[in-house]
Amino acid sequence: MPIEDIISRIVPLDREAMQVALDRQEKLTKPKGSLGRLEELSVQVAGITGNPLPRLEHKVTLVMAGDHGVVEEGVSAYPQAVTAQMVANFLQGGAAISVLARHVGARVVVVDMGVAADISPHPNLMIRKIAYGTGNIACCPAMTREQATQALETGAEIVREQIERGLDILATGDMGIGNTTPSAAIAAVFSKRPAAEIAGRGTGVDQAGLQRKIEAIQRSLEVNHPDPNDGLDVLAKVGGFEIGGLAGAILAAAAYRRPVVIDGFISTAAAMVAVSLAPLSRHYLIAAHTSQERGHHLMMDWLGIRPLLDLQMRLGEGTGAALAMSLVEASCKLLVEMATFGEAGVSQKESQ
Amino acid sequence: MPIEDIISRIVPLDREAMQVALDRQEKLTKPKGSLGRLEELSVQVAGITGNPLPRLEHKVTLVMAGDHGVVEEGVSAYPQAVTAQMVANFLQGGAAISVLARHVGARVVVVDMGVAADISPHPNLMIRKIAYGTGNIACCPAMTREQATQALETGAEIVREQIERGLDILATGDMGIGNTTPSAAIAAVFSKRPAAEIAGRGTGVDQAGLQRKIEAIQRSLEVNHPDPNDGLDVLAKVGGFEIGGLAGAILAAAAYRRPVVIDGFISTAAAMVAVSLAPLSRHYLIAAHTSQERGHHLMMDWLGIRPLLDLQMRLGEGTGAALAMSLVEASCKLLVEMATFGEAGVSQKESQ
Repeated sequence: MPIEDIISRIVPLDREAMQVALDRQEKLTKPKGSLGRLEELSVQVAGITGNPLPRLEHKVTLVMAGDHGVVEEGVSAYPQAVTAQMVANFLQGGAAISVLARHVGARVVVVDMGVAADISPHPNLMIRKIAYGTGNIACCPAMTREQATQALETGAEIVREQIERGLDILATGDMGIGNTTPSAAIAAVFSKRPAAEIAGRGTGVDQAGLQRKIEAIQRSLEVNHPDPNDGLDVLAKVGGFEIGGLAGAILAAAAYRRPVVIDGFISTAAAMVAVSLAPLSRHYLIAAHTSQERGHHLMMDWLGIRPLLDLQMRLGEGTGAALAMSLVEASCKLLVEMATFGEAGVSQKESQ
Repeated sequence: MPIEDIISRIVPLDREAMQVALDRQEKLTKPKGSLGRLEELSVQVAGITGNPLPRLEHKVTLVMAGDHGVVEEGVSAYPQAVTAQMVANFLQGGAAISVLARHVGARVVVVDMGVAADISPHPNLMIRKIAYGTGNIACCPAMTREQATQALETGAEIVREQIERGLDILATGDMGIGNTTPSAAIAAVFSKRPAAEIAGRGTGVDQAGLQRKIEAIQRSLEVNHPDPNDGLDVLAKVGGFEIGGLAGAILAAAAYRRPVVIDGFISTAAAMVAVSLAPLSRHYLIAAHTSQERGHHLMMDWLGIRPLLDLQMRLGEGTGAALAMSLVEASCKLLVEMATFGEAGVSQKESQ
């Protein structure tokens, strides 16, 4: 389906369902507001799904992988081969996201969106490779405009397929050596903040590596002139295949009224692309956590979302999102399963 | 067992197990430190249990209930009858803690430590009532020194019994209309901070109610002169039966080397009593979350513990602790189940 058609399906949240959920929250056996953000979350999910008693049974973590030409600039602490090696680790169940997805009862969908190596087929791997890695954004565009559209539509199509299999809530995740660099470039374009305020140490580059990274981002903006008013242009010029795939997945989640839990730095950059293309999609986002990566908070401010967790994590893969997804599920169980004052025969607050 | 015997069993954490866990963390397929507090947690649990590959299979939420004579001073927004009504709600599975314990796979143990009403027997209710509510601390001691000892020993005994049934990690929870008042009094004694800096609105008293509460706490300290160097004296004079029970449970968890997740304001007051009696027990504590109740952060500072979550909750019952318990379990699964770089064939960081 053309991405324009996906975008045109995105509607505002269902205010009526939200009001019914809010009214119910006030009748449940607890002081008003005492479940804090869990109450807010349940009301948001009611608005997203249009169901005042939402159930999030089928949880999916979508981990998209891609490689990045900009690694030529020495911006990462790990060799490019690690992208494909970690995809294999996801499929074998030994990665952090494998463990956390099992913990929260989510299924993991792994997609090769553009890894710079051929990965052996595996029943749990979707191979949707757009190219063997992006161009080096420090000297040329990451991809063509057609490839950017293809990345978005691939991500959207995967979410449509997963909804057929059962998907009540989506968590985003990423793998791609070097991908904090394009993510920081995307954030710099949209937020109009300097690269040095956004770029961090990623998987752990040293001070000289961080300096090379900041310069690579600056050059990527000078050489490519991405247009902040054209999300597709930003994605094509300084993005990545997994970032585009995630942006498309976010748009489809919004179009099909599924809450989408945004992981860390890379997923948040993908969310910025999605929201630039479809501002209404913002209301379908739930920010999982504050990444330790430097400019992450600026990106969340731009999106107007507030993270649930701060566990000083900076791994990606969807690890923060998997944990947060369980909190969102819990918030809906509280809304649906708690007894009201009337049902439980509990006295209400005394008038003062 | 006398509480002195429980206390004498508490030993420092196992440094060797912690070092083995730490070494393993560095070999797992992720950038060093990128799982943030989840890495720290797993190492703490290794030290607590003495097992460098800890598994937290059996999770228990201990919810202790008691009533408080100080409600005569008009310190709570809800009538005293709600304590017993909410205990019934826990047993019927309709309370927030019922829902969250189911969500994280924990069993709930509900104990009547001193509710001011007879609660109908129920297979899941332990009746260990010390008295029908405490004395009004604004004019007299909450309980005798003997009752305080009995509360501690009852809590410890329950944890011993639960360990027989299987208990790898304990979460604390409370129910007791008015119990933020004695908790704030306990916090004021140990932290030597004024009542007005600690007391908050509890379940939602108005401004006049908050003023009455602050004055009741001030009077409780003037009338009773609790000795901050004698934890049993503090518990007896300005405590509560459920608070004493939780303090005893915390001591027993430490004695039997089980991690104990401390919920909000009331549980943290219980932890202060436990740590005042046995300073080593501090290392067995995991702070679940920052309560919205005013002085909670001062109490955690005094204990030297740092909360995992901040979801703007202020409900008690063990709700924050249940959610945090799942994070602790996840941290141990990551330590145990993730593949190492060697096992997964993933390349290590490049030397720079």
